[in-house]
Parts: sequence; structure tokens; C-alpha cells
Amino acid sequence: MALLVQKYGGTSVGSVERIKAVADRVYKHHKQGDKIVVVVSAMSGETNRLIELAKSMQEDPDKREMDVLLSTGEQVTIAVLSMALKSLGIDARSYTGKQVRIVTDSAHGKARIQHIDTESMKADLDSDRVVVVAGFQGVDVQGNITTLGRGGSDTTGVALAAALKADECQIYTDVDGVYTTDPRVVDSARRLDKITFEEMLEMASLGSKVLQIRSVEFAGKYQVPLRVLSSFTDGEGTLITTEKRESGMEQPAVSGIAFSRDEAKLTVKGVPDTPGIASKILVPISDANIEVDMIVQNISADGTTDFTFTVHRNEFDRALAILKDIQLELGAKDVIGDAKIVKVSIVGVGMRSHAGVASTMFKALALESINIQLISTSEIKVSVIIDEKYMELAVRSLHSAFELGDSSTSN
Amino acid sequence: MALLVQKYGGTSVGSVERIKAVADRVYKHHKQGDKIVVVVSAMSGETNRLIELAKSMQEDPDKREMDVLLSTGEQVTIAVLSMALKSLGIDARSYTGKQVRIVTDSAHGKARIQHIDTESMKADLDSDRVVVVAGFQGVDVQGNITTLGRGGSDTTGVALAAALKADECQIYTDVDGVYTTDPRVVDSARRLDKITFEEMLEMASLGSKVLQIRSVEFAGKYQVPLRVLSSFTDGEGTLITTEKRESGMEQPAVSGIAFSRDEAKLTVKGVPDTPGIASKILVPISDANIEVDMIVQNISADGTTDFTFTVHRNEFDRALAILKDIQLELGAKDVIGDAKIVKVSIVGVGMRSHAGVASTMFKALALESINIQLISTSEIKVSVIIDEKYMELAVRSLHSAFELGDSSTSN
Repeated sequence: MALLVQKYGGTSVGSVERIKAVADRVYKHHKQGDKIVVVVSAMSGETNRLIELAKSMQEDPDKREMDVLLSTGEQVTIAVLSMALKSLGIDARSYTGKQVRIVTDSAHGKARIQHIDTESMKADLDSDRVVVVAGFQGVDVQGNITTLGRGGSDTTGVALAAALKADECQIYTDVDGVYTTDPRVVDSARRLDKITFEEMLEMASLGSKVLQIRSVEFAGKYQVPLRVLSSFTDGEGTLITTEKRESGMEQPAVSGIAFSRDEAKLTVKGVPDTPGIASKILVPISDANIEVDMIVQNISADGTTDFTFTVHRNEFDRALAILKDIQLELGAKDVIGDAKIVKVSIVGVGMRSHAGVASTMFKALALESINIQLISTSEIKVSVIIDEKYMELAVRSLHSAFELGDSSTSN
Repeated sequence: MALLVQKYGGTSVGSVERIKAVADRVYKHHKQGDKIVVVVSAMSGETNRLIELAKSMQEDPDKREMDVLLSTGEQVTIAVLSMALKSLGIDARSYTGKQVRIVTDSAHGKARIQHIDTESMKADLDSDRVVVVAGFQGVDVQGNITTLGRGGSDTTGVALAAALKADECQIYTDVDGVYTTDPRVVDSARRLDKITFEEMLEMASLGSKVLQIRSVEFAGKYQVPLRVLSSFTDGEGTLITTEKRESGMEQPAVSGIAFSRDEAKLTVKGVPDTPGIASKILVPISDANIEVDMIVQNISADGTTDFTFTVHRNEFDRALAILKDIQLELGAKDVIGDAKIVKVSIVGVGMRSHAGVASTMFKALALESINIQLISTSEIKVSVIIDEKYMELAVRSLHSAFELGDSSTSN
């Protein structure tokens, strides 16, 4: 008998049939004696429909009214899912964010949760009721409806699990868990039974879009065990937790291979190697609201140095133009860029205690004659920038080098 | 500078263009210096779409959840209308029923308003804001979302006008006022500038479906001047008020001719004229939840009497079957019925002080050789039941007899 928070996204509640399938799944858990809080998103397509409607009224729709509008999406889902549950003979009760009292700040469209009232939900759970909560929305202290921003339903799920001290927060999605790498790239990619929050954060920020980064951070902070499962198939999914070490089992060095096609590289060549040069280069970039990912500056030769950084590929042209503008001022010899690159990373908490992980990586890439353009490391990750044409080859060779594959599948 | 509550129904906000037209109208009033509270319904078609969705989940959808679901309809409208107003440069703020705190009882689907908080709305109006309120919905003291039942947006409008002590509650609809009779039946039917609440109630209950009866009762009780106008054309509409007498003007005897095609007549023939016979006949009918309209029992001959009443035409077969079942028990000679009848009524507060109104009516019908089957009167109304084939003829001749027509149009 566990207390579970189950979150179902827009695709999982995208049609009458799928909402009924969700009701069936909740029914099974409820029958097993679990106490269940369900968090749902708007039916897929609904949010876009509402945004269209708003834009036909006002070019840049008022943020407060946008939240009033968008919050109806989840309100529809909580009502009809509750009806579906009742038709199965389960007592269910819907709650909007305002009805729970998921209290947020007043930053419409990207509000942050400050407090959650749990009394009503607890009373319902104690009376054997299933509680159905609208994700993505809350209310500020003045009573205005707020939304947490897109994907915010995951955050609602985790926040409710934390507030209710749930045994697990289950995120139902269209994939059946977190994989060692993208199965579309590597056939033998294997679903991970467990992964740590830190690893998940690295995987998520590197393009594995299973979960919103914010909800993973939140779950890690409040130590809420998080499980990613498929709402279409049965299975154990992947548990995201603080410690994945099984008793008596050796920790593998690397848990997964992540990659991102969204990178572009910029290099300012031959700038004087003087204090403050990095900020002279990067301040104009950040002033233009361009986010910088990797930053590499090598040791200087003859008093000048090359300064390289990466940005999102969409921002490449803008960033390049800014650098060209300040080239003279910087005293740089040249400004060059390359948008045809990718970032490939190995991720694993195990590398903390394993020497030689990076060298295994570099050796595997060298064996395939893949040139490494940039390297960046963190405690649980090594990332390299390579030519985009080698991406699949690099991912496959690393997946194999770290023995991540499902042994039953040929790689 | 007046305080106006303007209510726009589903047809008036049925599309992006129509919502923009409503915004334009509100803009004009606001520019004139009026303080405005707008009450809106769901966009036409939306409520039916949501009901369909509910029925696909649960045969008899849970009433609490149905209110959660349906209330999203108006919530969408308040948000997008507020956006449209803001795009015109007017500061507007939307309120759900829950946000105003339109407190109702807990009778989901047919809740009654108990109290309205006006502080926030008043503060907004004082800051030159237009207040946009979701019609049809409220909240009970436990915080559950309730709805007032279909057409309840009119009631919301009147209740807000009463609570705010507004100068007028304007109901915008697809007709430009209340007419002396249906213009589709009588060419010369004329829009009334004014009508009393009592007359409006009689007109409404007799098939002039301009306003919900409940909202008229409510307006009469709280003495809220109510005006019916078209949201598609400009005009003064019809003012519904406590006293329509213009200073120095003679009150016309009759204000309008109403009619209803929804009637059916049942007669129990030759029942013993003993005390309690009426209840013996009508109790089984009301037990079957059939509403009885007119009831006529004439004086008896030879110790027996004929007992006649009318019901909604949809209930005719059921009512007839019930009477046949109890015919023996009643000691009745026969039970007969006729569904091919209509009710035609003359309505006017002026008839209180005018003798001979009824006889003018009967004479006009006799001139056309229309047989009167039943007669029923109230203080401000005389109704007759006639063969349905004479309906248009009867309405036209009465409209003419009471000189209701627009003199510029031939009748």
C-alpha cells in the first residue's frame, strides 16, 4: 500500500480512449490498495488551440489573461478523467490548482510554487478517494490564476509528491523509461532500471527530453523518488533516485551516452591574453540574451590566445554578427564559426571513482578516426564537440566501448 | 456616467470576430465615461462540445465534475474578451465566478446565488478598469465550482447589477428588444420601448424566449432596471422596469400578444362531482413529474363534472396513459385528449384598470369564427386555448384589435 502521485502528459490524455486507458490504469493501482493522486495535462492540441485563439485577440496576449485561458485546458481533463473513474466505480474528485491551493508567485506564464495545501487531498485519500489535480497551474496570494510554464505538469507532480511525502512520483509518458542512449541511433540501447538525479539532469540537459529539467531538480532537492513509465505499455520504467547502487553490485562507470544536435561553435582567434578578455567577449553575447554552453580557452602562445564557446544553433548567426562587430575592439585576428557540429557526452556518477573513463572515451573515438574539436568535463560527465557527420558513429562506438548495450541484441 | 452591467450571450461571443465586436461596443461605452462590468457566456457550441465529451466518459456524468468541466467555457471567453479589450487600450480584468466569489448553494447544475463579494470589482471600476465576469458559474462555501444551469448567465448579470447597485443591466442578445408579438407571425409587430417585469414574466412563460424567467424574477425582486438589446445592431432595445407609465400618457390596456405551441389538452369526462376529485386526478400526474399548466373545472350537471387541464405537448402521451389507468378508479365516463391546440394570451398591466379587455378579446376571435376551448385569466393576462390551425389568425386579429401594430406597416 503506497501513496503514489501519477502524472499523465498531454499525449497520454489526448483522446477519449486514452483518458479511459488512464482511468483503467489508475483503477488497477487503486484496487491494489494504493492511495493515488493523479496529475494531468491538457489534452494534446488543446493548449495550441487556446494560444491561437489568444493571438487572434491580441498580438502579444496579456500574461494574466493567458493564464486564465490556458488553465482551462487541464480543468477539462481533470473533470472528464474524474468522470471516467467514477464510471469504473471509483470515487474521484477533481481539483484545479486554485482549489488545491498550489500557491505560486505572480510570475504569470512561469510561476514558481511556494506552498501547497495538502489537508483536503489527505482527507480525500483517507476516504479512499482518488484525487485528480490539474497540472501546470496554481494561484497567487491575490487569487490570480498562474501557470508554471510549458511542461509544468511534471513540476506539479513532483511538488505534490514532495508535499504529500508520497512514496513515488510516477511520470507517465510516451517512452517506457530512460535509455543508455537514443534507441533510434543505437539498436542495442538498453532501458536503465535506475539512474541518479544528477545523471538524469545531465542526460536531460543534453537532449534526452524525457523529463523537464526543472522537475528533476525539484525531485532531487526534495528527495522524491521519480519514475518514468510508458502510459501505453506495462513495465517498470526507470526509477530516478538519490542512490542507484545496488547492494553488492559494482557501480558501472558510465550510465549513458547523450548527444545534442543543437550546438554551434564560435572562435575568436588571436586575442591578447590579458585579464578581462573573456568577459569582453561574453558580455555582449549575454546582453543579447544568448545562452552560452561550453567555454574553452587554451594556454596562450606569443601573448595571444584563441577563445572558443558554443551556443544554441538557432543563435549562431546572431552570435557571429555580434563578434564580428566587436572584433576590432577586441584586437582579435579573426572570428570564425561552425554550425555543423554536435556534442556527444558520456554521463555517469560512477566516473567519480573510476580512473581512465575519459581516456577510454578518447581512445574509442580515435579508433574511428573522429577528431575531437573541444572537450569539457564535469564531475559526472565528459563532453566532446565533433563534426556532425560522425555523430551516430561516435554514439555507437561509445555505447559499445562502455558496454552499455543489451547483450541480447547485436550492436 | 452610469454603472452598467452588460451581458453577452453565447451567440454574441460565438466567434473571434463577434468577440471583437463586443470589445468595440464596450470600448464605446467606456469612452463615454460609463463604468462597465461585462458578463459573458461560453462561445456558442462550446457547451455542447463539453457535454458530448462528458457523456463519452460517463453515461450520467457526475454533477460536480460536470460543473468543473462546463465552467471552462465562460473562463475561455472572459480571458479572450479581456485580451481583445486590452488590445484596444482598455485596462480589463477577468474574473471567474470563483474569483469574484459568487457564492451559491451546492446544487450542482442548478445552483442558486446566495451572496456576491463586490470589493474587488468596485476597486477595479474605481481604477477605470473594465471588469469581465464569467456568467453561469459560482462557487459553494466549500470551494466547489457550481453552475446556475443553462441560460444562467442572465441571472449572473442581474445578480451582479443588484449587488453593485448598477444603473442598468443590459442583456445583449440576437433580437433587438421585446415585441408586441412574434414579428414572424405579425408583420406589424412593434418593439416595445418599455415593459413591466410582470408583463415580461407572462410573455416569457408564454414562449417569448428573449430572457430567462429566473433572471426577470430576480431583476423584479431587486428592482434592477433590465434592458434587452441586440448585440448586432444599434438601438435602444426594450427597458424592463417596475413602472412603464410615462407621465401624462394613457396606459395601453394590452402590451402584447403571446402564444405557445407547446400545449396539449386532457379531459376526464363525467367524474363524480365530489370533494377531492381534482387531487385524485392531478396527484398521479404530478407524481410522474408532469407539469400542469391551465386547469379548468366547470359547474357540474347531474352530479358529475368534466375536468380539463393542459400539459406540455411532449408529456401528452404519458399523461393520457396515466389517466386511462386510473379512469375506472376515478369513476370517469371517458378520458379524451387533444394535442393539436395552442394557447394564445393577451398580456398587459393596463388591463387591471380597463374593463372589457376580455370581451374585446372574445369578440375579435368570434369575428374570425375561432372557437375558444378553454379560458384562464390572471390579473394581467387572459389566455385561451384554441385549435392550432387558427393560431396565426388569432394572433393577428388580437394584435389588430388591441391596436398594437406599428401604424406605418399595414397589418
